[in-house]
Amino acid sequence: MAEEQKDLYYTRDIPVPETPPAGSDPAPWDKTTIVGTRRSRVDGYERVSGTALYPSDLALPQMLYGAIVRSPYPHCRVRSVDTAAAERLPGVRAVLTDASPEAQVRWEWSRGYEKRLFDPHCRFEGETVAAVAADTPQQARDAATAIVVTYDVLPFVVTLDEAAADKAEKVHDQGNRAKHDTYSRGDMEKGFAAADAVRKRSYSTAAELHTPLELHGCLANWDGESLTIWESTQGVFAVQSKVAATLGLPLSRVRVIGSYLGGGFGSKLTPGKYTIIAALLAKKAARPVKLFLSREETFLAVGNRPPAQMTIKGGVKKDGTLTALEFTGIGTGGAFPAGGTALLDWLVRDLYLCPNVACETTDLFIHGGPARPFRAPGHPQCSWALEQMMDELAEAISMDPVELRLKNIPTVSQGRGGVPYTSTGLEACIRSGAKIFDWSKARKKAEEESAGSHLKRGVGMGSCVWYVGGGGPPSTVILKLFADGSVNLNMGASDIGTGTKTIMAMVAAEELGIRPELIQIENADTGTTSYATPSGGSKTVPTEAPTVRAAAVELKRQLLQWAAEDLGEPVEDLRFEGSRIVSKASGKEIGTTAVSRLKKRGLAVGIGHRGPNPDGKSVNPFAAQFCEVEVNTRTGEVRVLRFVGTNESGRVMNRLTFDNQVFGGIVMGIGLGMTEFRQFDVGQTGKVLNKNWHDYKLPTALDVPLQMISEPVEMPDAEANSAGAKGLGEPVTIPTAGAIANAVYHATGVRITESPLNPLQVMRALSAAQKEA
Amino acid sequence: MAEEQKDLYYTRDIPVPETPPAGSDPAPWDKTTIVGTRRSRVDGYERVSGTALYPSDLALPQMLYGAIVRSPYPHCRVRSVDTAAAERLPGVRAVLTDASPEAQVRWEWSRGYEKRLFDPHCRFEGETVAAVAADTPQQARDAATAIVVTYDVLPFVVTLDEAAADKAEKVHDQGNRAKHDTYSRGDMEKGFAAADAVRKRSYSTAAELHTPLELHGCLANWDGESLTIWESTQGVFAVQSKVAATLGLPLSRVRVIGSYLGGGFGSKLTPGKYTIIAALLAKKAARPVKLFLSREETFLAVGNRPPAQMTIKGGVKKDGTLTALEFTGIGTGGAFPAGGTALLDWLVRDLYLCPNVACETTDLFIHGGPARPFRAPGHPQCSWALEQMMDELAEAISMDPVELRLKNIPTVSQGRGGVPYTSTGLEACIRSGAKIFDWSKARKKAEEESAGSHLKRGVGMGSCVWYVGGGGPPSTVILKLFADGSVNLNMGASDIGTGTKTIMAMVAAEELGIRPELIQIENADTGTTSYATPSGGSKTVPTEAPTVRAAAVELKRQLLQWAAEDLGEPVEDLRFEGSRIVSKASGKEIGTTAVSRLKKRGLAVGIGHRGPNPDGKSVNPFAAQFCEVEVNTRTGEVRVLRFVGTNESGRVMNRLTFDNQVFGGIVMGIGLGMTEFRQFDVGQTGKVLNKNWHDYKLPTALDVPLQMISEPVEMPDAEANSAGAKGLGEPVTIPTAGAIANAVYHATGVRITESPLNPLQVMRALSAAQKEA
Repeated sequence: MAEEQKDLYYTRDIPVPETPPAGSDPAPWDKTTIVGTRRSRVDGYERVSGTALYPSDLALPQMLYGAIVRSPYPHCRVRSVDTAAAERLPGVRAVLTDASPEAQVRWEWSRGYEKRLFDPHCRFEGETVAAVAADTPQQARDAATAIVVTYDVLPFVVTLDEAAADKAEKVHDQGNRAKHDTYSRGDMEKGFAAADAVRKRSYSTAAELHTPLELHGCLANWDGESLTIWESTQGVFAVQSKVAATLGLPLSRVRVIGSYLGGGFGSKLTPGKYTIIAALLAKKAARPVKLFLSREETFLAVGNRPPAQMTIKGGVKKDGTLTALEFTGIGTGGAFPAGGTALLDWLVRDLYLCPNVACETTDLFIHGGPARPFRAPGHPQCSWALEQMMDELAEAISMDPVELRLKNIPTVSQGRGGVPYTSTGLEACIRSGAKIFDWSKARKKAEEESAGSHLKRGVGMGSCVWYVGGGGPPSTVILKLFADGSVNLNMGASDIGTGTKTIMAMVAAEELGIRPELIQIENADTGTTSYATPSGGSKTVPTEAPTVRAAAVELKRQLLQWAAEDLGEPVEDLRFEGSRIVSKASGKEIGTTAVSRLKKRGLAVGIGHRGPNPDGKSVNPFAAQFCEVEVNTRTGEVRVLRFVGTNESGRVMNRLTFDNQVFGGIVMGIGLGMTEFRQFDVGQTGKVLNKNWHDYKLPTALDVPLQMISEPVEMPDAEANSAGAKGLGEPVTIPTAGAIANAVYHATGVRITESPLNPLQVMRALSAAQKEA
Repeated sequence: MAEEQKDLYYTRDIPVPETPPAGSDPAPWDKTTIVGTRRSRVDGYERVSGTALYPSDLALPQMLYGAIVRSPYPHCRVRSVDTAAAERLPGVRAVLTDASPEAQVRWEWSRGYEKRLFDPHCRFEGETVAAVAADTPQQARDAATAIVVTYDVLPFVVTLDEAAADKAEKVHDQGNRAKHDTYSRGDMEKGFAAADAVRKRSYSTAAELHTPLELHGCLANWDGESLTIWESTQGVFAVQSKVAATLGLPLSRVRVIGSYLGGGFGSKLTPGKYTIIAALLAKKAARPVKLFLSREETFLAVGNRPPAQMTIKGGVKKDGTLTALEFTGIGTGGAFPAGGTALLDWLVRDLYLCPNVACETTDLFIHGGPARPFRAPGHPQCSWALEQMMDELAEAISMDPVELRLKNIPTVSQGRGGVPYTSTGLEACIRSGAKIFDWSKARKKAEEESAGSHLKRGVGMGSCVWYVGGGGPPSTVILKLFADGSVNLNMGASDIGTGTKTIMAMVAAEELGIRPELIQIENADTGTTSYATPSGGSKTVPTEAPTVRAAAVELKRQLLQWAAEDLGEPVEDLRFEGSRIVSKASGKEIGTTAVSRLKKRGLAVGIGHRGPNPDGKSVNPFAAQFCEVEVNTRTGEVRVLRFVGTNESGRVMNRLTFDNQVFGGIVMGIGLGMTEFRQFDVGQTGKVLNKNWHDYKLPTALDVPLQMISEPVEMPDAEANSAGAKGLGEPVTIPTAGAIANAVYHATGVRITESPLNPLQVMRALSAAQKEA
């Protein structure tokens, strides 16, 4: 059995690209055999069979379970904490409160906002008050409940309006304004004066909560002075540095492992207080502590996409030329500075060609859980407003919405002062999408079919650029070639579910000429892999793919050098041919696994470092989306019938994961646009009313469009990096909500400016419009 | 708190050696600050607190437990296996027998001896017949018991005499002779003719069983087509290659992890059938399977130090010059070729200067469990015979035993045809030990104190060379310098309890000028570390220490290069001063952690490869041991009063672990010499009678000498490798048993030639001698 299997595995049938001369980067691939094909996940079996061990699956001998006592009020002061009863409960091994000597650690929410870990001044519902570790999760939960906390309940502000009010309760002493930014270019007055039509409207999007399938949490274990943390995280090195800084440990004493995680979407880019609490409980109890939050806790305390109130005023000439865009946005990062308006105006600044732009954003504090980055921070919110405004302007000048956008395609990054893009597929995305969607026909057909029916059909579209997406240094990847020709890929980056491991196996396979199945991947472990930044910002593929290429090229160089010794030939004459190294001059050859230095060393090791990005250019991915909806004007229900997503992200690395990203992004955009919102008990208790999956509505299978088509606009970007790839994970979700809103307007003639587009909002808007009419 | 701790950790107070020019190896250290000091284990806390996770500690979700059905007879043929009852038992998830399609795998005992995994022809008690996996260990054991096996019981040979008999039952078709070797140099006739005294005597040592605290076994888990094995092993890469070859998998599909193990002593250099069985059970059950053997199983099936029958004849001149040594040895590796006489004659060939030497060894098969290497294979057995013969020859010419040995010190490896040693401390060890022991005085005093008492005191000694001990390639180590100056050491080698990790941390600390506490070590994982050979043969320190040095030097070179860019100074002018890099020319300087490329990359990576060994020289460690015993001539009890061990192993890397090796080696030697033996039920059932820790006598605390002194003879060996270190783990146990036998002779005047020197044997010998007298 062994022999045939070996043949099966070890035959290399993939061409090996030429190895570039030492010191030079590999040229872009002109043709690929593996990269760009449809490939199932290399860890697909593990993921679907349940053998993949996520941090929340792990168990250590003697492991305890942690639980956290959290403030039940949006704003209060802890008067007393009595742990006596809790400490007497069976199985309780450690209790931590603000008074515990072991908990004298400061948590930096952000620069200048360093607070006690169990700060008695609680500024949001869900703030940490105490923690316990016990033998079972039930005992831990019981003990947390048995801790008697008395609170002085204080007034609160949980909406933007409340926070901005004159005599508002102050979240922090200095007031409720966290940040205020302005941006402008050109001359707004002239711009609007030059316009044939000017429109102005206010929009709002609700707060969206991160809902990864795997909850937030970790397992912490001390070996003497050394701490190991298995955390559900997008970036093990980010967790390592924050934990080390918080606990005052050297980096080598903090090992963070996070090979798998069940979703993050930005909320797991950094560790949480739970990470520190687990570590401190483990230290106090001298046993491993597993601390994963409940769904309720994650809804309260580990992040959200901030709500946004936006007003946008646009001016356009009759020929479709945009003359001016004015944007004001108000947002909130919650109770601490957390980017409440981060990138909220970026699309206004950068997406469509416009000489005169002014933006103003105001970030307010509220007594709510802090925000965290959420898939394309700021962008989908802005898109909701901007794409609706674009449609409104198109209507004002009686131009097709697609035409209007095509009229205003920039070739440089206007938001960056005119820096050229390395490549831009914005126009191609819009054209390709419109063609696949059959836009004009579909538009007409929808109008025809709606006539006389309470089921109104409409089509809408939107496009986007994503703020970053080109990746960049630092990243270091190590490739090991085993003596039998199989390969181990050692990478610090996390695969957050997007297929990073699969794509990196394909890159290594492409470059080394072996099958992807032969590549074993170990990743996301600060103890055994090399530095990588967290997986987020659509930068993982453009960062890691060139790094893997560099490591593979280094490996090939070594092999050629060693083969030159064996063959007695100059290394310049040698090249790979499948599984052999051949001299062009003499024809002498040697099998790659027969190279004697490889055998002597047991393996060859190649290190790759991510090279710098191009100077003076901006690397960004682009997208467009088109959709068709059906609105039931009697019930307010909106059905999304179909979606076309066209994305230009440089080279398509894996067509299967590419398409899946697009489909996933559309569904998540449907969540933002149609179903999700965090609801405070405004004016009453200030608590979050829908902190569970029953009341907080995620899109389900029934909300998924009946048809979704993904069509890449493939433009390998040789200037961006040696893999030619740009990011994909975020542009796929940016235009979705706005496109749906435009389609609903097209169907009903009513602009619904407040997300989500659920039956209640739709009926409200339709009724209001009817009354007006 | 964070700040002070950082100061504490990050102050570098260790001088950093000059970095050698690129392309050249580092010069030997002339002075060391860390290396050579007494240092507790870097993982001491984990080991003693129980937080260290040994493979046998691990648990995975859904994990099953394996159990093996083993032949109860030394020789039999399986007629039928009925698993029906077992398969109906609760919790049983997988059953494997020779008939199972999943078990059609061949196990290569050694080249030419490839058998079915569950070979129906069982050649030793404990051979594998079937296996089960069940939800609990008890269910697995019950199910194994419920498998009904019928055997044809066959005749057997379990002693060397039985195996060698004329019409002996054949263990293999070709007969019972596994191997026959001869060696000679000089002219034996002339040699003995030149002697003034000639003596000849037969000796024997009993089979000694490996008794690591942690049992043999593993936890096996499949992720799709990829297998992960957590095994209690001395060498993860050896397990990887054997498992891959046996199961026909590429190396990248087999990940072996074995960061900790609870002892091996040679029996865990390679995987066992249990490894394959665990993997196959896990595959069949589609769940992780943990399979650790019982103590009884390890006593039967995973190795032993073979028994030896030896005859030695020596000739000596009156002045102490050895003229001839003739050695015949018979041994057995058990039922398969397993080095039954491996290195059995090496000390005769190599230790003492002698021009005329003839050796003959015969390795026989018996129906017993296969041998495996056991700490210094062959050497302690040979030492038992040779050291007693040396004493006998000394007595014959009325010379002090120490004097006789000092008369015959070679400077070359005679067994290798006169190749010079890179260094030899044999003479220094004997002289130093004799001095510390106060040999002459102690000898006289023992004789005086014994007069007229039934408690007889005596002193004895022995010395040794170990066959190898210089280490060598291949090994690859990766060092990572984190951005805060702390370090991660990534090494394939196992720390088998000897302190390898601690010593490597010291080497890296010495070279990098940082504290060993700042070095995090990840090792022994084929998925995340680089190739290393198994830890055994006293080669780990001399192999890995230079490799770690090479990696550290590479790291320093990178830092200097990067600092040169920052400072705008030629790299040749730069040197490390504590935590700063300073230009000798301009005085400009930069903190090591301020180097901008280090910050940009997140870390620096240095790879070290073990360089070649010196040509035409032999690298070997040497030792001598001296002991004093008290023999109760009424009971036969022997008390070991004190031991002095002197070892020359090149540079002393860690004085604490050095001494502990010596003490441990002496205690293990006491086991061989005084307490341990495997007892077959000879002539009756042929089974092992003492396969448990009650009947098989390991030395206990009460058997440990009242006083043990370790005194290194430190001779850094610059020729051997860049660390100047030679191996230590094996020479420490070689002379022990022989030295004790010599002391017992000195006390009683009676030569006890058969090990172990337990009361039964001692009384037998004393009685026989009394009868003779």
